[in-house]
Amino acid sequence: MAIEASKSDERAPKIRLGMVGGGQGAFIGAVHRMAARLDDHYDLVAGALSSTPEKSRASGVALGLDPDRCYGSFEEMAEKEAARPDGIEAVSIVTPNHVHFPAAKAFLERGIHVICDKPLTSNLEDAKALKAVADKAKALFILTHNYTGYPMVRHARELVQSGELGDIRLVQMEYPQDWLAEPVEQTGAKQAVWRTDPAQSGVGGSTGDIGTHAYNLGSFISGLELDELAADVHTFVEGRRLDDNAHVMLRFKNGAKGLLWCSQVATGNENGLKVRVYGTKAGIEWTQADPNYLWFTRLGEPKQLITRGGAGAGASASRVTRIPSGHPEGYLEAFATIYTEAAAAIQAARTGSTVDPAVVYPTVDDGVKGVAFVTACIESSKKNGAWVKL
Amino acid sequence: MAIEASKSDERAPKIRLGMVGGGQGAFIGAVHRMAARLDDHYDLVAGALSSTPEKSRASGVALGLDPDRCYGSFEEMAEKEAARPDGIEAVSIVTPNHVHFPAAKAFLERGIHVICDKPLTSNLEDAKALKAVADKAKALFILTHNYTGYPMVRHARELVQSGELGDIRLVQMEYPQDWLAEPVEQTGAKQAVWRTDPAQSGVGGSTGDIGTHAYNLGSFISGLELDELAADVHTFVEGRRLDDNAHVMLRFKNGAKGLLWCSQVATGNENGLKVRVYGTKAGIEWTQADPNYLWFTRLGEPKQLITRGGAGAGASASRVTRIPSGHPEGYLEAFATIYTEAAAAIQAARTGSTVDPAVVYPTVDDGVKGVAFVTACIESSKKNGAWVKL
Amino acid sequence: MAIEASKSDERAPKIRLGMVGGGQGAFIGAVHRMAARLDDHYDLVAGALSSTPEKSRASGVALGLDPDRCYGSFEEMAEKEAARPDGIEAVSIVTPNHVHFPAAKAFLERGIHVICDKPLTSNLEDAKALKAVADKAKALFILTHNYTGYPMVRHARELVQSGELGDIRLVQMEYPQDWLAEPVEQTGAKQAVWRTDPAQSGVGGSTGDIGTHAYNLGSFISGLELDELAADVHTFVEGRRLDDNAHVMLRFKNGAKGLLWCSQVATGNENGLKVRVYGTKAGIEWTQADPNYLWFTRLGEPKQLITRGGAGAGASASRVTRIPSGHPEGYLEAFATIYTEAAAAIQAARTGSTVDPAVVYPTVDDGVKGVAFVTACIESSKKNGAWVKL
Amino acid sequence: MAIEASKSDERAPKIRLGMVGGGQGAFIGAVHRMAARLDDHYDLVAGALSSTPEKSRASGVALGLDPDRCYGSFEEMAEKEAARPDGIEAVSIVTPNHVHFPAAKAFLERGIHVICDKPLTSNLEDAKALKAVADKAKALFILTHNYTGYPMVRHARELVQSGELGDIRLVQMEYPQDWLAEPVEQTGAKQAVWRTDPAQSGVGGSTGDIGTHAYNLGSFISGLELDELAADVHTFVEGRRLDDNAHVMLRFKNGAKGLLWCSQVATGNENGLKVRVYGTKAGIEWTQADPNYLWFTRLGEPKQLITRGGAGAGASASRVTRIPSGHPEGYLEAFATIYTEAAAAIQAARTGSTVDPAVVYPTVDDGVKGVAFVTACIESSKKNGAWVKL
Repeated sequence: MAIEASKSDERAPKIRLGMVGGGQGAFIGAVHRMAARLDDHYDLVAGALSSTPEKSRASGVALGLDPDRCYGSFEEMAEKEAARPDGIEAVSIVTPNHVHFPAAKAFLERGIHVICDKPLTSNLEDAKALKAVADKAKALFILTHNYTGYPMVRHARELVQSGELGDIRLVQMEYPQDWLAEPVEQTGAKQAVWRTDPAQSGVGGSTGDIGTHAYNLGSFISGLELDELAADVHTFVEGRRLDDNAHVMLRFKNGAKGLLWCSQVATGNENGLKVRVYGTKAGIEWTQADPNYLWFTRLGEPKQLITRGGAGAGASASRVTRIPSGHPEGYLEAFATIYTEAAAAIQAARTGSTVDPAVVYPTVDDGVKGVAFVTACIESSKKNGAWVKL
Repeated sequence: MAIEASKSDERAPKIRLGMVGGGQGAFIGAVHRMAARLDDHYDLVAGALSSTPEKSRASGVALGLDPDRCYGSFEEMAEKEAARPDGIEAVSIVTPNHVHFPAAKAFLERGIHVICDKPLTSNLEDAKALKAVADKAKALFILTHNYTGYPMVRHARELVQSGELGDIRLVQMEYPQDWLAEPVEQTGAKQAVWRTDPAQSGVGGSTGDIGTHAYNLGSFISGLELDELAADVHTFVEGRRLDDNAHVMLRFKNGAKGLLWCSQVATGNENGLKVRVYGTKAGIEWTQADPNYLWFTRLGEPKQLITRGGAGAGASASRVTRIPSGHPEGYLEAFATIYTEAAAAIQAARTGSTVDPAVVYPTVDDGVKGVAFVTACIESSKKNGAWVKL
Repeated sequence: MAIEASKSDERAPKIRLGMVGGGQGAFIGAVHRMAARLDDHYDLVAGALSSTPEKSRASGVALGLDPDRCYGSFEEMAEKEAARPDGIEAVSIVTPNHVHFPAAKAFLERGIHVICDKPLTSNLEDAKALKAVADKAKALFILTHNYTGYPMVRHARELVQSGELGDIRLVQMEYPQDWLAEPVEQTGAKQAVWRTDPAQSGVGGSTGDIGTHAYNLGSFISGLELDELAADVHTFVEGRRLDDNAHVMLRFKNGAKGLLWCSQVATGNENGLKVRVYGTKAGIEWTQADPNYLWFTRLGEPKQLITRGGAGAGASASRVTRIPSGHPEGYLEAFATIYTEAAAAIQAARTGSTVDPAVVYPTVDDGVKGVAFVTACIESSKKNGAWVKL
Repeated sequence: MAIEASKSDERAPKIRLGMVGGGQGAFIGAVHRMAARLDDHYDLVAGALSSTPEKSRASGVALGLDPDRCYGSFEEMAEKEAARPDGIEAVSIVTPNHVHFPAAKAFLERGIHVICDKPLTSNLEDAKALKAVADKAKALFILTHNYTGYPMVRHARELVQSGELGDIRLVQMEYPQDWLAEPVEQTGAKQAVWRTDPAQSGVGGSTGDIGTHAYNLGSFISGLELDELAADVHTFVEGRRLDDNAHVMLRFKNGAKGLLWCSQVATGNENGLKVRVYGTKAGIEWTQADPNYLWFTRLGEPKQLITRGGAGAGASASRVTRIPSGHPEGYLEAFATIYTEAAAAIQAARTGSTVDPAVVYPTVDDGVKGVAFVTACIESSKKNGAWVKL
């Protein structure tokens, strides 16, 4: 309730950051840059912002980068930055999915920390290979499953971990959108083109693009391990080469059940990510479009609306809350939290100190699980919805 | 917007009504009676309100019935009322599910119209037998899938029928409750006891009690025929003899897909029936707990909130709207609409005249479909979620 | 949470009811009749449904009344019904405001209970005269401030009375509508014509029609007595003869403050009655369009959403709740509760027994307060917003 | 609907920024810094972050400032920075209100642009004096009425300006909070102490702190000029020296009316700023806690929910939208928009070029109006609610 001082100004020397992808016309690159700036832990100093060298340079200069550090390829950037005494300490990879693996590998093997967009890779083979690289590397790998950065998501997870929900019975996830309800990729819209191209996206369309987010978030909050799934994956828009809708039934290892629905053709839904978890003692419900609220109901008690920064929000939410309740934080703030958590880990790695155990971010293991989930969905669907083990 | 005169006072001689079940301690019987009274088309004049003769009489007298018309069994009531010159013209059957078939048969075969609670019967064999009886009978059979009586549900259906949604791609239904999250049937709670007893409820627990409602409503609005389903039906509460949660994937004959989730253990949900339908041109969303609103979004246009009685509500909604917008109508009004539609049909049958084609109510065919749905869910689940044709 | 048996079937001999006003084309008369029927405590047996004798008879016959008991005027009805051994015991007065006083007087003086629509009268003089008549009469006077019949309104009041809110500081009332945003009375729309006619409505337009409802509801919930008010009453629509918007600042006798806004020109509001009460310990918020919910927040705790029939709803709400939580009750049910409370009082009066102290309904004193409120608003506004004592 | 590239990366050389106030323990200073960083148009290079020199230096160093540019007073900072070739071009003033005037004066007179927190000053005399200074200065003065930065607020204003609402009749503003419901200033809570201290805040408590925001926002959206007001300003918490609640009736010059309620004792409200505007043709409603939505209703049509970045959002909203619809932007983004608009103006001033006419930010005139509003509220209230001309 009370207005307190912001927590965003604690400070260590900034992290020198590079970026792969995210040049002019890109969407998620600019999001990463805003996220990196918000809490002021990074300096963007180098980039391979486009696979076209001239575009890369033009984009970099527009961002105020030194032209000498605007590279024509990630390979060049990895090599040259690794050789500089003031080279980048970390790199953000914000390309289409198929580039994640080779780019991450190039930097990790040179000891440069990687902050990588999701899904981890475009196929399971790459995912496992990347895990092997990351496990061996001295550098950190952070996957930007940005929705885990929302304070009320952190609180939801804390409620589960503290036993407030009892034994979890149900995890219901949905992520409907409508921006691909028509074949917009045929109009050349850049965001649609690569997302519906198997060569760039991988085996999954909506499953990879947003299904992985929903699955990751349900797993993050519930803490449950998936055992098997049965999926009905479908492409509604004629001529589209990847799925645009999926229905998935889930069975978790503890005996809980779940449903996951992702869609890019559900008209009237902008970005409708929602997770509901029900246990023997209580239930919770969180909706991404209204992220400052968390519904929490103990069995037999009135529903509670817990608010970010407000009464009832616990320590894990407060850690990642910047401003008082009633002053909404949004998507960029949640994304920035991933960057700030990464900064804490990177700064600890610099000095060899231990990371605060409260620091939480998605790892390469979460990424492998996500790609395995997509792969299992496609496999189950090909087998007409047979159950597939994870 | 404007306040107009109510439409609830058109009048023909009232219909003489009897009731089977619904004695003291019952829930749905009283709902039927309020529904029958609201628009004043019925006179309750006879009852077999309990299977215990003394209770039946006591309950009837408490309701103001003539003690001579309080019967000890539905068989007695059917026989004696059929023999009276002023005998009942219609009967409401509000018993546990297993009684629906024999009771309905007894009255239908005597030319007495039947208004019957859902699900139609406790198993598919009875359902088909009842259909055979109903098809042969001169009397009408009305199934109280009461949620179809809501004006905004009628409007949703009208939007689909008029082509506003384009081709339907997705029908998402959910019906979570939480009142059986604990084994309350073991405390003797009457409503829980019979609903969890296979002998009284039939093969389905939550699937029969509420899954049929969700399925019926999705079908009513979308107008689609189900082709096949794959289900994961489960009982979470130890010792419970029927299911309390079900996840169902659906494939409709036109190629549309759907999900249906029903649960009685989803803590924080009171009576969360919700239907969403997405087509190539628009999408709609309706939630039973807030029944006076319908979300309607055309692709690429702002979301519209259409209100009962308000701008945008069409003819099919207006027909069943009693009071102006902003003055909420609820569950009892929707239930009363089923009774009023039934009255229109019964009154037309009296005189041999044609029923207004705008009159809509669920029939024995809807009932058979509902029981077939439950049966298929159970079968699919026994086959570990294999697709089962309807 | 649990589904229990309905409470609406307790029974005493029905009350013989007459009605003044409410003939064909009327709105509120039909609402009163549905409200009287829902819980089955009344038999409508006589009417002076229109001031035109032929219309009165036609309307009565359409309602199934004995033509001999369809009267051409309320005076005739009062006289003849009082003389019959089976004459009416109670009468509903549902005419334009200026008829309330003479009609109520005619019945009260003959010992016939009066259930009267609000506002009490069209001016303060009549209101006081009616109070004098009612105070002397042996019959009861019940004013249908129907919004007090909502279970969550009852619960709000219980929370205040039980001290949960602490000392009340603020009572904020608003009642915006938009149906008079244009001069619809000039099109002859019956509901608009009489409501904007000083001869039929009295001194107040929106203040009398809906401001009295808001004021009554704020008083009902908070239990506070108004000390003085300052008002800015206005007519926005050219040519309209009564106010269509009012802003009122309130000071209560305990030192609390308040605001009241009523409007019939606030586009986008259908029937937006809302009351918020804030005390030293907690605050509540209730919105008529979503009547099954009550927001309740203790200082420094998460917001609670208390639901009708759900966890947290107290005894005063349960008394007037018919069906389980999640099955919404609406405007007609709340209205019916006024009739059922009246029936309890009338039935007690029949036998000379004491009324259950839990029975609550608005009285002639509430009516006088309402008319005094309107009168004070108009007076203050004429004095350019000077404070006027109640 | 479609996901497009972000617009936040257009770039000119960054603006060298200083800050007065906002040291350790402050709230709004950190908000200003995050806002300045988000779109990357500023470099914070100097500060007089506290009135205690050691604290100022410690705070500055913690923020990464050069210790030589951490000043002990704003006077020193103004003088020394103005003398540097690389001195600050702009300064953010984020102190308690009474410091705004002298600090702004010191910088404006040296040609340094001022970005100043609201309210403009602690009294009307200072406000007018500051206006005189600002009008004469070569530097710009930007007031951070941050709520005007929300895209849906911009769209609301565009709807009014484009005539979609017709003639405006009503402007309803409310801003309830609850964080001062108890005398927290007596516990030493820094934010509460200065806000309730007349020496630091000025004549208004809640009126100055949040009433000015509501008034500014209503004016910004409606474009109306206030003519006169009548106010009932009150202090509920015993011992508090400034108001914590105000009720204000408003009359605008075009004949429109309004209500304004601000409160810091309304339990259950975190930061409940809300503006509703009603015209002859349509109405709008916007709530700060859910800022990505705007309700828009044309008379006689269904309600529309317009979303930031979504269908229906106009050019003025798109200009200040960073990410796609359904990905919520919040308070910091709106605040950042003020900084980005200021940057556009400052960068234009650098080169003597014309500012894009689409650039909008609050000016010293808005600030004078705000202080005049507070002054008039206090004066009216002292005269027992008499109307006071602005």
